[in-house]
Amino acid sequence: MRLSRYFLPTLKENPAEAQVTSHRLMLRAGMVRQSSAGIYSWLPFGYKVLMNIQRIVEEEQDAMGCHQMLMPTIQAADLWRESGRYDAYGPEMLRIRDRHDRDMLYGPTNEEQITEIFRDAVKSYRDVPSLLYHIQWKFRDEVRPRFGVMRGREFLMKDAYSFDMDDESGRISYNKFFVSYLRIYARLGLKVIPMAADTGPIGGDMSHEFLILAKTGESEIACHKDFLEMDWAEREIDFDSDLQPIVDQFTTKYAATDEKRDLEHESTLGDDLVTARGIEVGHIFHFGTKYSDPLGARVTTADGDEVTVSMGSYGVGVSRLVGAVIEASHDDDGIIWPESIAPFKVGLINLKSGDEACDSACLGMYNDLRKAGIDVLMDDREIRAGGKFADMDLIGLPWQLIAGPRGLKDGMVELKNRATGEREDMSIDSAIAKLTAS
Amino acid sequence: MRLSRYFLPTLKENPAEAQVTSHRLMLRAGMVRQSSAGIYSWLPFGYKVLMNIQRIVEEEQDAMGCHQMLMPTIQAADLWRESGRYDAYGPEMLRIRDRHDRDMLYGPTNEEQITEIFRDAVKSYRDVPSLLYHIQWKFRDEVRPRFGVMRGREFLMKDAYSFDMDDESGRISYNKFFVSYLRIYARLGLKVIPMAADTGPIGGDMSHEFLILAKTGESEIACHKDFLEMDWAEREIDFDSDLQPIVDQFTTKYAATDEKRDLEHESTLGDDLVTARGIEVGHIFHFGTKYSDPLGARVTTADGDEVTVSMGSYGVGVSRLVGAVIEASHDDDGIIWPESIAPFKVGLINLKSGDEACDSACLGMYNDLRKAGIDVLMDDREIRAGGKFADMDLIGLPWQLIAGPRGLKDGMVELKNRATGEREDMSIDSAIAKLTAS
Repeated sequence: MRLSRYFLPTLKENPAEAQVTSHRLMLRAGMVRQSSAGIYSWLPFGYKVLMNIQRIVEEEQDAMGCHQMLMPTIQAADLWRESGRYDAYGPEMLRIRDRHDRDMLYGPTNEEQITEIFRDAVKSYRDVPSLLYHIQWKFRDEVRPRFGVMRGREFLMKDAYSFDMDDESGRISYNKFFVSYLRIYARLGLKVIPMAADTGPIGGDMSHEFLILAKTGESEIACHKDFLEMDWAEREIDFDSDLQPIVDQFTTKYAATDEKRDLEHESTLGDDLVTARGIEVGHIFHFGTKYSDPLGARVTTADGDEVTVSMGSYGVGVSRLVGAVIEASHDDDGIIWPESIAPFKVGLINLKSGDEACDSACLGMYNDLRKAGIDVLMDDREIRAGGKFADMDLIGLPWQLIAGPRGLKDGMVELKNRATGEREDMSIDSAIAKLTAS
Repeated sequence: MRLSRYFLPTLKENPAEAQVTSHRLMLRAGMVRQSSAGIYSWLPFGYKVLMNIQRIVEEEQDAMGCHQMLMPTIQAADLWRESGRYDAYGPEMLRIRDRHDRDMLYGPTNEEQITEIFRDAVKSYRDVPSLLYHIQWKFRDEVRPRFGVMRGREFLMKDAYSFDMDDESGRISYNKFFVSYLRIYARLGLKVIPMAADTGPIGGDMSHEFLILAKTGESEIACHKDFLEMDWAEREIDFDSDLQPIVDQFTTKYAATDEKRDLEHESTLGDDLVTARGIEVGHIFHFGTKYSDPLGARVTTADGDEVTVSMGSYGVGVSRLVGAVIEASHDDDGIIWPESIAPFKVGLINLKSGDEACDSACLGMYNDLRKAGIDVLMDDREIRAGGKFADMDLIGLPWQLIAGPRGLKDGMVELKNRATGEREDMSIDSAIAKLTAS
């Protein structure tokens, strides 16, 4: 992409309305603009990151045998009356009346809807377990939206649902999601700690929140310090195998969110205890027949009996993750994208746009990189070099390829690694080769 | 994908609520389920088609230099008050009041919003022309939603917007979209006729609707019979070249929607006139300063003057296209997907699931096809062969690979082309080779 033709309205100054780093950097890097309180437009640069995260979530959910579908944003109130949640849900639910005076709502979540779909479609044990997910915009009418996309009102979420014959089989589904989530966050370059979370009246141990540690975290958490040394690397998984050992590995040590902290136990941990602030980026939850019972989602067993299916739901905050990744990966100059979700791999800086030799050398590199399948953003604007350096650091592409008239005379360019700050003078060919190989 | 693990609730009977072919087939093929009036959930099979169409639209919009972004579904009423449309828009607008009693709405379109974004971000002629698009769910509270996804209330639309220094430059942008649309519809296997459409008070000739001819079309159209013979094949385009000759080629002959028909002119056409019913699948429209003027979207020229930018908007009904493609491509047995958007290329029918030899031969072919990068759906359910044949015809995958114990004894399978009905007995290797090569 040529920056001169792109839509990337960066800001030099810190916007007054942004309280946290990620919000500030997303505004400055031209990723989002607020449309109304807690509601954002994603400009092209931000949209690419959002979709890169979505793609990783999709790939990992597909890999575990979960099927993608899409439920609508607007739901009938009557469906929520079946589960009893229409009246129970507070003012965070955006309630709507349509032209025929029917009560509707903008879905904050989809348990009722997916249960209805399953109930009407599946009648036999042969079609169970069933794992379904969708990635759709949700709305929660927060009384005080803040932190940019981290606590917005309209937000993009992946929510998945499992249907099993019984709770034991439900645990197998639950474990698949648990392990799939470890893979998702590892691919995003995030260290995420699974923490025991509230299960509500159902009880049991099958509810975990996934949190990253960050100073701007919304809640205080406590965990065993071994979590900080845990191996988060992506692991190869056979999802048909027994995943309990992996789940155990990440749940045996103490880790708890605010509401679940056990101060008595913490007092026994001594120096092994760490407290910090965390940002929730996922939540998985087995809730048995909470929805299948009132909505009547029943299937026949091999013996011809009828059972109410056992369910769980599994959420990842896709738009929130954009902010969370930035909270975890930035410096004073701007964002530092992990390569897995960087909107472009390389930023090519033409230090003297308008100079024929510079333009032609840069265009050559630009075309070579694109031919090699590398996404590159070329700064070909006719502005001062200082502005180009600042913008390139701000938007945080993993590699900067810097070309000016002096170096180009000898066929040399500079290659800078955004994360380490390392710079290297090298020939054009070596630079291209290095970027193509890495 | 193994059908035994997939979520594909096909229906044997025609659902009573479906009046048109595409709606009937989408319900029967397990593509969608109605959630409430005019609002649908997309089940996995339907969602794949929807995304395949979206991908083609994205590729073609990207190729013409239009940048993808994403605007939210919920908009502030105040923004629409700036353009005067909040009061002008009828009951089709879904009006919402949030918890702070602010007037909001579910966007039926995005002219105001994109104009606000452009106005706040772009100040100089250097950043114009600017072409932006997004693909987002819209809501129009139709009084009588019908025809399934063809006239739903919540629908997926690609809407693009152009910003130019003047109307002459606006025509260049308009022509790019015109030609890009020809490519999109060609890739979807559709014959689409561009028809002069209403420009409203602005006048001029820069408004076209793109219609496919279908018996179930919602409006009567008339056109020169030469359109039926027009060459719709995908063409290579240099979008920086003058596209007027291509636009002329598709607009010189007479073609008009209901409201624009010129009966006097039609009477001179004699046998060259064709009347038919049409389904609108796109609409492009240059409207000058209609929104940029009230919203104050102005940029400075090279001379330091200020001008109000000239705009156009360009829509493709993405979810509606799923229905439109089916209206254009089906037979008595079911859907016939064009390969470009087929959710799977091959349906592999195991005639005797549970038979060890059959299962193992089918699994071998399944793995070979997948290794070759071919999307295949294997019907491994333990049901009668008749049900498998009927379902496979119904869901309309381009190729059926049929394997039973009798043929497999001699290493033979049957390959059926869904569109032509042609069947061929061949060795497993030849079948795989043919599917891999085609």
